[in-house]
Amino acid sequence: MKLVQKRSKKTGLPPGTLVHIGERKSEHVTVTVFCYSTTSCKELQVEQVDQLSPPADESMIWINVGGVHKVEMVETLGKQFSLHPLLLEDVTNTDQRPKLDDYEAYIFLVMKMLSLTGRKDIAVEQVSFVLGKNYVISFQENGTDVFQPVRERLRGGKGRLRQSGADYLLYALVDAIVDQYFAVLELSGEQIEAVQQAVVDDPKPETLNEIHALKRQLLFVRRAVWPLRDVMTSLSRSDCPFLQHPTKVFFRDVYDHVVQIVDTIEILREMVSASLDIYLSSVSYRLNAIMRVLTVITTIFMPLSFIASIYGMNFEYMPELRSPWGYPLVLGVMAAVGVGMLVLFRNKRWL
Amino acid sequence: MKLVQKRSKKTGLPPGTLVHIGERKSEHVTVTVFCYSTTSCKELQVEQVDQLSPPADESMIWINVGGVHKVEMVETLGKQFSLHPLLLEDVTNTDQRPKLDDYEAYIFLVMKMLSLTGRKDIAVEQVSFVLGKNYVISFQENGTDVFQPVRERLRGGKGRLRQSGADYLLYALVDAIVDQYFAVLELSGEQIEAVQQAVVDDPKPETLNEIHALKRQLLFVRRAVWPLRDVMTSLSRSDCPFLQHPTKVFFRDVYDHVVQIVDTIEILREMVSASLDIYLSSVSYRLNAIMRVLTVITTIFMPLSFIASIYGMNFEYMPELRSPWGYPLVLGVMAAVGVGMLVLFRNKRWL
Amino acid sequence: MKLVQKRSKKTGLPPGTLVHIGERKSEHVTVTVFCYSTTSCKELQVEQVDQLSPPADESMIWINVGGVHKVEMVETLGKQFSLHPLLLEDVTNTDQRPKLDDYEAYIFLVMKMLSLTGRKDIAVEQVSFVLGKNYVISFQENGTDVFQPVRERLRGGKGRLRQSGADYLLYALVDAIVDQYFAVLELSGEQIEAVQQAVVDDPKPETLNEIHALKRQLLFVRRAVWPLRDVMTSLSRSDCPFLQHPTKVFFRDVYDHVVQIVDTIEILREMVSASLDIYLSSVSYRLNAIMRVLTVITTIFMPLSFIASIYGMNFEYMPELRSPWGYPLVLGVMAAVGVGMLVLFRNKRWL
Amino acid sequence: MKLVQKRSKKTGLPPGTLVHIGERKSEHVTVTVFCYSTTSCKELQVEQVDQLSPPADESMIWINVGGVHKVEMVETLGKQFSLHPLLLEDVTNTDQRPKLDDYEAYIFLVMKMLSLTGRKDIAVEQVSFVLGKNYVISFQENGTDVFQPVRERLRGGKGRLRQSGADYLLYALVDAIVDQYFAVLELSGEQIEAVQQAVVDDPKPETLNEIHALKRQLLFVRRAVWPLRDVMTSLSRSDCPFLQHPTKVFFRDVYDHVVQIVDTIEILREMVSASLDIYLSSVSYRLNAIMRVLTVITTIFMPLSFIASIYGMNFEYMPELRSPWGYPLVLGVMAAVGVGMLVLFRNKRWL
Amino acid sequence: MKLVQKRSKKTGLPPGTLVHIGERKSEHVTVTVFCYSTTSCKELQVEQVDQLSPPADESMIWINVGGVHKVEMVETLGKQFSLHPLLLEDVTNTDQRPKLDDYEAYIFLVMKMLSLTGRKDIAVEQVSFVLGKNYVISFQENGTDVFQPVRERLRGGKGRLRQSGADYLLYALVDAIVDQYFAVLELSGEQIEAVQQAVVDDPKPETLNEIHALKRQLLFVRRAVWPLRDVMTSLSRSDCPFLQHPTKVFFRDVYDHVVQIVDTIEILREMVSASLDIYLSSVSYRLNAIMRVLTVITTIFMPLSFIASIYGMNFEYMPELRSPWGYPLVLGVMAAVGVGMLVLFRNKRWL
Repeated sequence: MKLVQKRSKKTGLPPGTLVHIGERKSEHVTVTVFCYSTTSCKELQVEQVDQLSPPADESMIWINVGGVHKVEMVETLGKQFSLHPLLLEDVTNTDQRPKLDDYEAYIFLVMKMLSLTGRKDIAVEQVSFVLGKNYVISFQENGTDVFQPVRERLRGGKGRLRQSGADYLLYALVDAIVDQYFAVLELSGEQIEAVQQAVVDDPKPETLNEIHALKRQLLFVRRAVWPLRDVMTSLSRSDCPFLQHPTKVFFRDVYDHVVQIVDTIEILREMVSASLDIYLSSVSYRLNAIMRVLTVITTIFMPLSFIASIYGMNFEYMPELRSPWGYPLVLGVMAAVGVGMLVLFRNKRWL
Repeated sequence: MKLVQKRSKKTGLPPGTLVHIGERKSEHVTVTVFCYSTTSCKELQVEQVDQLSPPADESMIWINVGGVHKVEMVETLGKQFSLHPLLLEDVTNTDQRPKLDDYEAYIFLVMKMLSLTGRKDIAVEQVSFVLGKNYVISFQENGTDVFQPVRERLRGGKGRLRQSGADYLLYALVDAIVDQYFAVLELSGEQIEAVQQAVVDDPKPETLNEIHALKRQLLFVRRAVWPLRDVMTSLSRSDCPFLQHPTKVFFRDVYDHVVQIVDTIEILREMVSASLDIYLSSVSYRLNAIMRVLTVITTIFMPLSFIASIYGMNFEYMPELRSPWGYPLVLGVMAAVGVGMLVLFRNKRWL
Repeated sequence: MKLVQKRSKKTGLPPGTLVHIGERKSEHVTVTVFCYSTTSCKELQVEQVDQLSPPADESMIWINVGGVHKVEMVETLGKQFSLHPLLLEDVTNTDQRPKLDDYEAYIFLVMKMLSLTGRKDIAVEQVSFVLGKNYVISFQENGTDVFQPVRERLRGGKGRLRQSGADYLLYALVDAIVDQYFAVLELSGEQIEAVQQAVVDDPKPETLNEIHALKRQLLFVRRAVWPLRDVMTSLSRSDCPFLQHPTKVFFRDVYDHVVQIVDTIEILREMVSASLDIYLSSVSYRLNAIMRVLTVITTIFMPLSFIASIYGMNFEYMPELRSPWGYPLVLGVMAAVGVGMLVLFRNKRWL
Repeated sequence: MKLVQKRSKKTGLPPGTLVHIGERKSEHVTVTVFCYSTTSCKELQVEQVDQLSPPADESMIWINVGGVHKVEMVETLGKQFSLHPLLLEDVTNTDQRPKLDDYEAYIFLVMKMLSLTGRKDIAVEQVSFVLGKNYVISFQENGTDVFQPVRERLRGGKGRLRQSGADYLLYALVDAIVDQYFAVLELSGEQIEAVQQAVVDDPKPETLNEIHALKRQLLFVRRAVWPLRDVMTSLSRSDCPFLQHPTKVFFRDVYDHVVQIVDTIEILREMVSASLDIYLSSVSYRLNAIMRVLTVITTIFMPLSFIASIYGMNFEYMPELRSPWGYPLVLGVMAAVGVGMLVLFRNKRWL
Repeated sequence: MKLVQKRSKKTGLPPGTLVHIGERKSEHVTVTVFCYSTTSCKELQVEQVDQLSPPADESMIWINVGGVHKVEMVETLGKQFSLHPLLLEDVTNTDQRPKLDDYEAYIFLVMKMLSLTGRKDIAVEQVSFVLGKNYVISFQENGTDVFQPVRERLRGGKGRLRQSGADYLLYALVDAIVDQYFAVLELSGEQIEAVQQAVVDDPKPETLNEIHALKRQLLFVRRAVWPLRDVMTSLSRSDCPFLQHPTKVFFRDVYDHVVQIVDTIEILREMVSASLDIYLSSVSYRLNAIMRVLTVITTIFMPLSFIASIYGMNFEYMPELRSPWGYPLVLGVMAAVGVGMLVLFRNKRWL
């Protein structure tokens, strides 16, 4: 997750010029097309998109483009479906903020998909949707796939999916992405609880790095989710003609999920901050405790050494030195002083 | 109280599929039914819900379902009362945020019930309500019961309860839950005052853990209560036909309570933060004071040992060593230096 | 000032049941009645309230109830003036948040009265008002009286008070309470300036406790004043028929005062926070300075003792030991080293 | 700048009673009157205000009252221009918050004038304006004058001032006050940059006091400026009949200035906070560096003294003591140990 | 970047007096004029602006003034295009906040241009635009040029630019400025990542200064960008007659960019704060670790020296001194004690 993506190659170009901004994982772009109606469902993978167009009859079409770095392909598709150049620009620039643009003939929706890569990391990927009267086009930045369950339901033909319009398909896809957020938060939650345990049990500098990595991770997740609240509100209240009322109820449900996720992110952020506080005070407490013990030891030996150095003086008239009891007595006094101080410091709980 | 609840088993399922998300305390589900009118009140416990339906006459019905992990039961009930699948999904997923959904034919309300478990812990439990024209269905996550006083009033038949509509029953149930919040805050208030005493009297690392536990607890309470403000505002201003004006006045009263609770939570949170500050500065002050005392002791013995080591030197011509007054004089000087430094440090309040 | 008031005895009771929540200072309840018109003013103290009712003619009536723990009295009065049970409940529960409820036939206003008890403490007391067409009923939690000047003006008959309606009387009473806030803030301001002086001159752990006590006190004052802003805005814009336009101008003036008080509270809170910062850095600076001085002393004696211990070695062939100048020379070197280090540390401002 | 001004002498008085609240600098009150029209401009200083009244013809009048502690004068003026008693009360109470009150027949505007006193301090002074159809009355708390340029322009008769109505005169006066704010911020900016230099170069406890003084100063400036945003918005959108559209454009310009000032204050506040952070970490870094150096010195002498004390032991059979190379060898070992540790600590950058 | 710009020379002048506020880089002012229509494009550089005026025919004119310190030139231009004096004042005062003023006959837009100077610094420069029916006037504070690509497009005649009205030209210029912001944020992002690495690897006091410089830099960027959100919203929703709907779509796109930039700035600010936290705890950890090691060394030598000083005592009857095994035994005990403590401290991870 880079802090700021490179956009320099775009500077100075006229608006609407398509330039891919972002990382690419593979060269290949997969285009999957689903043509379906209440009664049938045809599925095909295409290499060229210049044959695709909005269906003339009552059937629905869903085009999923897995990878946006081939800008000519996006451009051709845009021409076929008469999409606005700015929309296509937003599709290829993968550092967009989640948003909803209403272009009257179609709705344009940008979201961020979060997915778990390996055990600890979260990948952020841009997914854009164009919803027309009877088509949905989805653009995935890297082709990481979370839409498999939706495809299964389309193929199976059960449930509302085939019976409803393109708006319900959009809902199903959006819902699949939002469901992923919960999985990501579950992971973050577990990591935070592990860190909370670690800061109490054995705080180390690495723990600090982990805390800051979690903080940063939550910041990225928050940036991806936060603007979705407004997007979902707009969707559930939109007066766009091909967003039907029953589907809006479903988008309100997604809105509820998003609010719940935002709430959870805030809680997790507070937990991370609390961990940081506990870490810092815990580390400082331990260091201080060590110093205290060391200083107590030094302090106990100071008077003992002093007594020894007194009887190391070379005065001729030091009567104690002559006495046969001098040595054992002094040793006894030293032991008494040492033990006395030890007991005193223990009682004061300094040791 | 887990930070994030497991939702993974729901990922990829079509919306409206009922899956129980949450913990279950007991296997058994208690369903209590109250049929009442101004003049009569019938009470029964049922095992099967497929005989229940909205009453056809003027009487009211209240169905209380204690436990939502038997999703088929929730589904059957939903069919009997023609409830929306998303509503039923929200009932079984117990990590909902408090909210109010208006489905026109009925109102759906989700709340969090707080209850004290043992002396220190707070349990959060989801309670959902469906309010129809002449019925109320309440779903309790675990069947912890706080509705006993409402049942007594229904049986007794005194007061407004039997005279008013289903909306007033809903108010009575909501009020019973909100009343619990006050009890929880009383406990938190007492715990915080105990901690405030502890950080001043005897700050220990355990105190720090307690402070953070309180902080976390208040965070959970706040999450449960905060969204209720909007919910209660909506209820007291709703233009839903079966929410009558006199009842709305009562919901405005609940709103006042909720605002008061939110205020109190904020005060308590500030108190906890202050405790944290006092703890940290208090701990650091004590540690520093100990180090200061130890270092003062060391510092006093430094010149004394130095004097002794001077007269431990083996020079042949050290006239003091020959003098019979040498030894007592040096002892005197040492005593003078030691006592002098002691007095000096005491005067400067370093000791 | 308790963090959270005990409400447990109210849990489970039907709404509208009057239970006194709060502390009571004296058993006795004083009820003062003022019947006045432009030309006359009658004043009496009553024991029973069942004879009181809204005046039928053009005259005004002001009933002041000093103490709300006798719930039957409140109940009787409520019956006489047909007040809503929830209103009476709010009167007897003295942990209400300031608020304004419009019951159409009358307006209900809850405020917090702040008064100085002794030199350092602030007492918070609830005062509720019912404003009808030609009556004002005021309920004081404990009967601490700040309305004396208003009574004097009523008796004197000068000024607007007797010429205007019940709404102007309500304004006069509210204004008397808000005037008290300024006195309380004056005291807080003085305490804060004393603390600010103390943290610079002589920071002690007690100063820290004082800072936190001030912080807490301001938190309570803020809680009492903050909601008044909305209340006063509502009053000055209310379309209630018995709140006349000229009086609304006066409520706008009270609004200005409340905003000014809120502003001042925020300034004071920032001052208290700044004091805390100064205290902490000042304490830490002093402790560090002491440690530095002590360590410098130790450090100066280390090389001196080392030199002495060299000449305390018992080698047979140490030519310096034989020289008659050995001893004074070594003493001179020691003095030079000691003074040199002292000068060095002083120059570096370490001492 | 006192935190809270004394208002106690006002407590209990009926509203509209004029009492001066604030400090007075001189006893004398200067009243300057400008009568002007497009063609003429008459200027006079008066002692009594009972001859002044709104002009009956087309000419304009500007009355400037320099000092508000003579409440009878304010009262007389109020009677002559039929001003509301609450307005006069606000004029004499100089702890008002900036605000705009529309009394229909006239507009009342309260502002705070900031001026530099000496090199470091900022004086806050209240200026109130009454704008009528063809008059402006300005009340200055202490008579510090910033209106000289406006007077010159009135006398000169050039520019819009004499051609426009009273509303443009009000704008010119308000603009003169807001221009002063920039001068004050310039000073604060310079002070902050000086402090920022100081915390890096030579952090001292006095620097800390300076930082907190700057913080407090900005708090006061902010309190004076912040509410002006709303005031200027109201003025530039007012539908008051004697505020003409062209003048509103000028008030929008003042609004822009105020927003710019508020922005700058926020930046300055962040700079001050950053200075505080740098100060604290810088002080702590220096103290720690000193302690580290001192401790390194102590640590180097520990093994040296230990070696010396070994050969100070009085065992009969210590062969080294007999060897003629013993002494120089031990001195060599000591030098090697000392230099070795020195090099080691230097390499580790501990010294 | 000065905190507050000098405005003192403006104090007291009548509004609309043109005074240049800001720095000037070169004396010379470049005025470039583009007259273009769908079919033609004429480009010229002029020295005098008194011949310029809004075109009478269908063609468009774009006047770019590179430098605003020659106030007479700005004044002349203002007269030719009948611009409001306040507008011209805002053009010459280069400390304006970004804003949009609608003067009905034309729109006035102020923005801040950010550009990179050298490797580390960001220059802020004011650019103002006047958009009339068929003209755009742009004023650049210092003539740093970012409009070259727009000029190329005008000359080339391809794309929308020559086909569209003056509003689209304004969009192209604004877009060029906003594109620069991304470049600036890229640089900041890289600097912050470098600092994040530095605080972990090798925290030095200079790193702290760098962190605070970055913080300050982001503060300035934020101040330049933040108000643009409202400006762009206004532009994309304006009902001004010469802002056509298709161009508003483009301004909505700029709005999206601005929001994205604001988001990124917030993220970067949080990153800088996190770096500060890590720096402080890292520095404190290192210092403490050093002190701990040093103190451990001291503590190990304390008992060793004590043992040596015991056998340095001069008692006559110390049987050990006579034994030939005394010396090696004592050396052995010392070694055992020293190694034992070393092992103990290592096990406890204190060393």
